[in-house]
Amino acid sequence: MCRLLGYFGQPVLLDRLISQPDHSLVVQSYQPKEMTAGLLNADGFGVGWYHATRKAEPFTYRNTLPIWNDLNLQSLSRYVESGCVLANVRSATAGLATDLSNCQPFQHASLLGIHNGFIKDFRQTLYRPMRDRLSDLAYQFIQGLTDSEHIFATVIDELETSANLTEALHHTLKVLMELGEAHQTPFSANLILSDGNQLVASRYAQGVPTPTLYYLQDSGSVLVVSEPMFDGNWKALPDRCLLTVHHDLKLDITPI
Amino acid sequence: MCRLLGYFGQPVLLDRLISQPDHSLVVQSYQPKEMTAGLLNADGFGVGWYHATRKAEPFTYRNTLPIWNDLNLQSLSRYVESGCVLANVRSATAGLATDLSNCQPFQHASLLGIHNGFIKDFRQTLYRPMRDRLSDLAYQFIQGLTDSEHIFATVIDELETSANLTEALHHTLKVLMELGEAHQTPFSANLILSDGNQLVASRYAQGVPTPTLYYLQDSGSVLVVSEPMFDGNWKALPDRCLLTVHHDLKLDITPI
Amino acid sequence: MCRLLGYFGQPVLLDRLISQPDHSLVVQSYQPKEMTAGLLNADGFGVGWYHATRKAEPFTYRNTLPIWNDLNLQSLSRYVESGCVLANVRSATAGLATDLSNCQPFQHASLLGIHNGFIKDFRQTLYRPMRDRLSDLAYQFIQGLTDSEHIFATVIDELETSANLTEALHHTLKVLMELGEAHQTPFSANLILSDGNQLVASRYAQGVPTPTLYYLQDSGSVLVVSEPMFDGNWKALPDRCLLTVHHDLKLDITPI
Amino acid sequence: MCRLLGYFGQPVLLDRLISQPDHSLVVQSYQPKEMTAGLLNADGFGVGWYHATRKAEPFTYRNTLPIWNDLNLQSLSRYVESGCVLANVRSATAGLATDLSNCQPFQHASLLGIHNGFIKDFRQTLYRPMRDRLSDLAYQFIQGLTDSEHIFATVIDELETSANLTEALHHTLKVLMELGEAHQTPFSANLILSDGNQLVASRYAQGVPTPTLYYLQDSGSVLVVSEPMFDGNWKALPDRCLLTVHHDLKLDITPI
Repeated sequence: MCRLLGYFGQPVLLDRLISQPDHSLVVQSYQPKEMTAGLLNADGFGVGWYHATRKAEPFTYRNTLPIWNDLNLQSLSRYVESGCVLANVRSATAGLATDLSNCQPFQHASLLGIHNGFIKDFRQTLYRPMRDRLSDLAYQFIQGLTDSEHIFATVIDELETSANLTEALHHTLKVLMELGEAHQTPFSANLILSDGNQLVASRYAQGVPTPTLYYLQDSGSVLVVSEPMFDGNWKALPDRCLLTVHHDLKLDITPI
Repeated sequence: MCRLLGYFGQPVLLDRLISQPDHSLVVQSYQPKEMTAGLLNADGFGVGWYHATRKAEPFTYRNTLPIWNDLNLQSLSRYVESGCVLANVRSATAGLATDLSNCQPFQHASLLGIHNGFIKDFRQTLYRPMRDRLSDLAYQFIQGLTDSEHIFATVIDELETSANLTEALHHTLKVLMELGEAHQTPFSANLILSDGNQLVASRYAQGVPTPTLYYLQDSGSVLVVSEPMFDGNWKALPDRCLLTVHHDLKLDITPI
Repeated sequence: MCRLLGYFGQPVLLDRLISQPDHSLVVQSYQPKEMTAGLLNADGFGVGWYHATRKAEPFTYRNTLPIWNDLNLQSLSRYVESGCVLANVRSATAGLATDLSNCQPFQHASLLGIHNGFIKDFRQTLYRPMRDRLSDLAYQFIQGLTDSEHIFATVIDELETSANLTEALHHTLKVLMELGEAHQTPFSANLILSDGNQLVASRYAQGVPTPTLYYLQDSGSVLVVSEPMFDGNWKALPDRCLLTVHHDLKLDITPI
Repeated sequence: MCRLLGYFGQPVLLDRLISQPDHSLVVQSYQPKEMTAGLLNADGFGVGWYHATRKAEPFTYRNTLPIWNDLNLQSLSRYVESGCVLANVRSATAGLATDLSNCQPFQHASLLGIHNGFIKDFRQTLYRPMRDRLSDLAYQFIQGLTDSEHIFATVIDELETSANLTEALHHTLKVLMELGEAHQTPFSANLILSDGNQLVASRYAQGVPTPTLYYLQDSGSVLVVSEPMFDGNWKALPDRCLLTVHHDLKLDITPI
């Protein structure tokens, strides 16, 4: 379990997203309200963003400390200004190293992704089957040992044969459904992906409770989060649905 | 606020003290029950211990990670076997670096010490007055910037002119009382100290609620803790009292 | 001993300063050429910069890892674009924690500073005398225990009564000279300071060899460094001199 | 490239092995003499040891900092006393996270192992072929992404069908030779392994220079190291040979 944040719209300072809201990602780290598993999100964190004006691969900043203990983040949050941001505070599986490689977002070329959820007993269940079906490129991409990174590696592969990012996420979930059934393995897969031009999110689980996912649309931006960060007209993304935030901020919700 | 543990008696594996109890120090790190301030104790931790058979300066192991995320501690807890142990999980003051220098226990020659509590607005109140009265030795000893380390440095000085460790702790608290009054500064000062031959603890506060402190005596050992770690005949150390655990495991409780 | 870099001029990506040159700060970290003490600069590092267009307090990023091992820096170096940058790779005094608080640059309000050099046996010599003469503000500012930070705290105080940053640096060096003589303590003090509108540097030592400091002026910028980073018309700042890089990129060199 | 140390014999303090020798592992970290690739060994380190008297799984302590910057190690080196020790200072492949999972020694049940050398372009060459032939147990064991850990995982598998540890190491090298030839991939594989009852080492390379490996036998112990640590009757292990240090300290050298 983690807490996710995706932002698409007018460029804003990271601060506005990560620290300033009443129930900011920092607060969700030590006092989350809607976790379906785990107590805290204090096992590292990460932020990824696209440049507001310049064409460039996205940028990431990750740390293994609890987000509230990272002094560098205070400077970076005052400096970084972006119109497309993904952020994550992590609740790790017990007994694994809180290595940087296990912190999100994951990045590949122009693609960023974050995941909230888990594959049950991952190393004993879908770990090897998921790896075995990866292309060499996606296989070699993997640096850590989280289920999240293996799902992201699957997205990398599916993107090769999909019409767009929404379809790639849909196909990835189908791969998980099939493997989950074949190996009788429950999983939950709330994901937020971006290529800088759009934001795509999923809310999905099989055999375990579906984690929450909310979105908020206003005139100049869309927020997608695990938990509402302030009072406002937040809407729950329906279970088993995909959300696409297009470049013009129009939304599509499609059942999975 | 932190959570403290002191053990004196038959040598035991660290594991037995830190991880195995139902409400172990690890659990108190992410789910404490009796905090008078703060929510978690996830801003680093530390363990100090004396050799079970060999005469030597005590040993310390400290880390800035939450205690539950330190994989090395799992090995060390299975290896280290000691009859005199002090341990601490830390709840830091917001905005300060979670540096190693700010993690407890503090060690000076054969002395180990841990502190739970705080001096209100420390840097603006007693910080400079406390330093100004230190000997050069105690002054130069200080590595970090916590109120706790400055209290420990005062113990180092008071020990020079005290008959024993209990008296040194008593004198240290008197220094705090006087400075606290002179500068109208509330503070709380639950401490556990040891020189390897005895354990001394205090429960004291001035102008703020006194943090809890419990002890448990059985045939071969005495435990002193912020929160009871398992079902048993724990007794609350009365407010404004000193507890001395003598080498023969006899206890003295004296009012401050 | 550390290696210093100061940049003032047209906004550039950090990458251009830190990683890309042949003898970049990264290379100087593991293979420095002109150290007067120490072998490596692998005990942490830091970068500070001012916003290229927006009025704001400067930003800092520091880490205790060797600079070559920081994956986040790769992203930040591609993202951060600034016309006024200070950076430092650190060679620590043995036996002290490589805490974040001991990493440079130091920042206070709009002021950034870095220091290469050392005060001999600092904790036993000028540590307490330097602290004793600080204002409460500068005293409370100090987070770590390096000589460098204590010199920077003295700058904070001297700035209050100086006409400009150059004068404040000059006065700070005079304080060091007097204290150094009074306590028979050799020291070296190559510093680079900025307030975002200018860069000021010193090359000075008393009783020990003066560390190197070079500058390079071209049409749109001035670089000040411990070691030349690429082939070019680098000039050694004369010993016991101050260098001022004015806002219009004009240079002043004045003897100390 | 890394620097290795194996010790078997009378129990000694870690200090005696790691810090006190003239050319100790700490010195080899910042000033190695016989590296065939790389300049430093400052990308983390680790120590593994067996209990001197009690039957138990071995213990490990690893850190991503340079070994000279680990303050905890100073305490542990004064405390830990063992008759069977493996230690490693690491020189990482550029661009990979210096994660704990990539630090050695590796441990599986009673087995400890360290590796000096590399598989050329590992992720593009033998990474996937090596994983594909692993048992599920060895596959799931892997936590990081080093070639070293994949070689160790192969040892885990080979041990299942080998008469002893020496044979398991020999079989592992044969696997590497075959895969190396099949994929035209040079590699070097200096390894030290132990199960607490013996020490086994290899010196081997294919298509690249063989790293050095020395041993020193005295009345009560045997040392195996990448670089001699002090003046003494060190002997170079011949290229393409295995060294077995039996429980009675007798040595066997057999060609691979």
